[in-house]
Amino acid sequence: MEHGSGGRATGELIREIFESQFNSDVLSEMEDAAVVPGNGTIAMTTDSFVVTPLEFPGGDIGRLCICGTVNDLCMRGAVPKYITCGFILEEGADVELLRRIVKSMADTANEAGVKIVAGDTKVIEGDGGIYINTAGVGFVPNDVDIKAKNASPDDVIIVSGNVGDHHATVLSQRMGIKNTIQSDNAPLQEMVGKLIENHIPVHVLRDVTRGGLATVLKELALASGLRFDILQEKLPVNPQVKSFCGLLGLDPLYMGNEGKLVAIVPKEYGPQAVQIIKSSKYGENACMIGSVNAPDDQSEIGALIMKTEIGGRRFLDILQGEGLPRIC
Amino acid sequence: MEHGSGGRATGELIREIFESQFNSDVLSEMEDAAVVPGNGTIAMTTDSFVVTPLEFPGGDIGRLCICGTVNDLCMRGAVPKYITCGFILEEGADVELLRRIVKSMADTANEAGVKIVAGDTKVIEGDGGIYINTAGVGFVPNDVDIKAKNASPDDVIIVSGNVGDHHATVLSQRMGIKNTIQSDNAPLQEMVGKLIENHIPVHVLRDVTRGGLATVLKELALASGLRFDILQEKLPVNPQVKSFCGLLGLDPLYMGNEGKLVAIVPKEYGPQAVQIIKSSKYGENACMIGSVNAPDDQSEIGALIMKTEIGGRRFLDILQGEGLPRIC
Repeated sequence: MEHGSGGRATGELIREIFESQFNSDVLSEMEDAAVVPGNGTIAMTTDSFVVTPLEFPGGDIGRLCICGTVNDLCMRGAVPKYITCGFILEEGADVELLRRIVKSMADTANEAGVKIVAGDTKVIEGDGGIYINTAGVGFVPNDVDIKAKNASPDDVIIVSGNVGDHHATVLSQRMGIKNTIQSDNAPLQEMVGKLIENHIPVHVLRDVTRGGLATVLKELALASGLRFDILQEKLPVNPQVKSFCGLLGLDPLYMGNEGKLVAIVPKEYGPQAVQIIKSSKYGENACMIGSVNAPDDQSEIGALIMKTEIGGRRFLDILQGEGLPRIC
Repeated sequence: MEHGSGGRATGELIREIFESQFNSDVLSEMEDAAVVPGNGTIAMTTDSFVVTPLEFPGGDIGRLCICGTVNDLCMRGAVPKYITCGFILEEGADVELLRRIVKSMADTANEAGVKIVAGDTKVIEGDGGIYINTAGVGFVPNDVDIKAKNASPDDVIIVSGNVGDHHATVLSQRMGIKNTIQSDNAPLQEMVGKLIENHIPVHVLRDVTRGGLATVLKELALASGLRFDILQEKLPVNPQVKSFCGLLGLDPLYMGNEGKLVAIVPKEYGPQAVQIIKSSKYGENACMIGSVNAPDDQSEIGALIMKTEIGGRRFLDILQGEGLPRIC
């Protein structure tokens, strides 16, 4: 418990582990707040990460927390710039593991082009758990206005790649199932930046995280009051994830990702947007999966309807209760 | 555990408890990130709050987390603007208590003039604990440059009021000691704003939190490489806190506050700065306690020296190890 009390032990832990990895000139000033250049319009977000296990194939909680915050900023069209991180460590947290996590954060921040500008560490009683909160600031370019309400009839719905990978990875680890499924956790600033640079008039972006693709699309449908139609046959799912889900009776539509997004763009820009995403890192399996349409009647306002492979029409709702074992 | 899984239960908890209190037009958009007006230079900070008990005379974890973040921004001369909050709730957290905490956050944010723009809630296994991380953004006025390194010889050291109150309050609560000591937890944006509006060329501001006044001053002395001299007879301590400390053998110099700051200003501005602070909310007991001086020899570089009431000269160090029972 000595680390975290505001005295010398805390100072040393912070300096040794964090400063050695987070090479930020701002952070090393050791002030209560960082002072950094701003921008006319900024985006802000926060997220806490309580994942088990802390390390998994394809990533760890460190990569996850940077990607999560970077991606939330990107979903408003912002260029991610600054991240703060607050660590809550339970007594007995493994210092070597913490070092690996912090290194992973630094590497991911580097990849995503963000600076870690402020941090804080607290130690609580417990059993070695490591929880991380990250908050982020991004700069929103002048003419960019991306939000859920902007979905319009005749827009197309694009997903940037295979769904369910992160969830299937974490479940496999927890259940001790041996396979080669890897988490997709990845920062999406390059993909989003390219869409904006290429003047795609993106209406909506949303990263596919907790609750899975169906939850995300249903929330967007509700926000717009329109009808979202998707085609089951178009849904990109890694065959190994598909088998894993089949075996356990899980639905990839409700399984979380950590490096995928949904983009909603005007129909005429659909093919170009898919090409741009495909040519971006982490977007190789992007495809159009459906469209946004005016509701035909009351029951279709805010509806998410999937045309199934056998020709049925299934109304999808957001994730109810746990639905699936919690993974993040 | 149902709350926090990304499905409907989470949505309802968030909407019911948080949205009802945090009347932010930005927050109610329910986007992954808030988009808000920015500024040419911004300050950013983060802090996690793991205090026990969650409610105490004079405040609670909700008021504490807003004040902590507001004050960290103020210490760089920034006008606090936006706050994000991440809740980590242990299973079995008391929902009525959570409601009171959230209301306290909303009231304090209102008092401090900040907007809560983004939030996140996660539920972990445990025993009803409530942990809160806040991160904040403030706008730094054009000509303001306040930081630890700016302390100069012939500056005076001002403390904005009685030290040790928060720490003594929390300890009293934990030990079941009956007294009327109250926490000083308060937002200091009015006090700092007045100093800046009145063109006091403030060199350094630092809030007196964990580690107490001695730790804070020693850190500032080290950052400047100068000698800080303080007078024990000048230290403002509430008599009741003094008796409490005397009884337990504690030193108010190392006891944390949550609504006090140290200001270091050029000597000629000292009296005016004290007057401004005294006329501000939460500054009535402000006073000059010492001065910054060029070191006379090697041993005085970064030294904090207290002239004791009996005429001795005591070199003070930062808090070592726990020193005192952890309170935040």
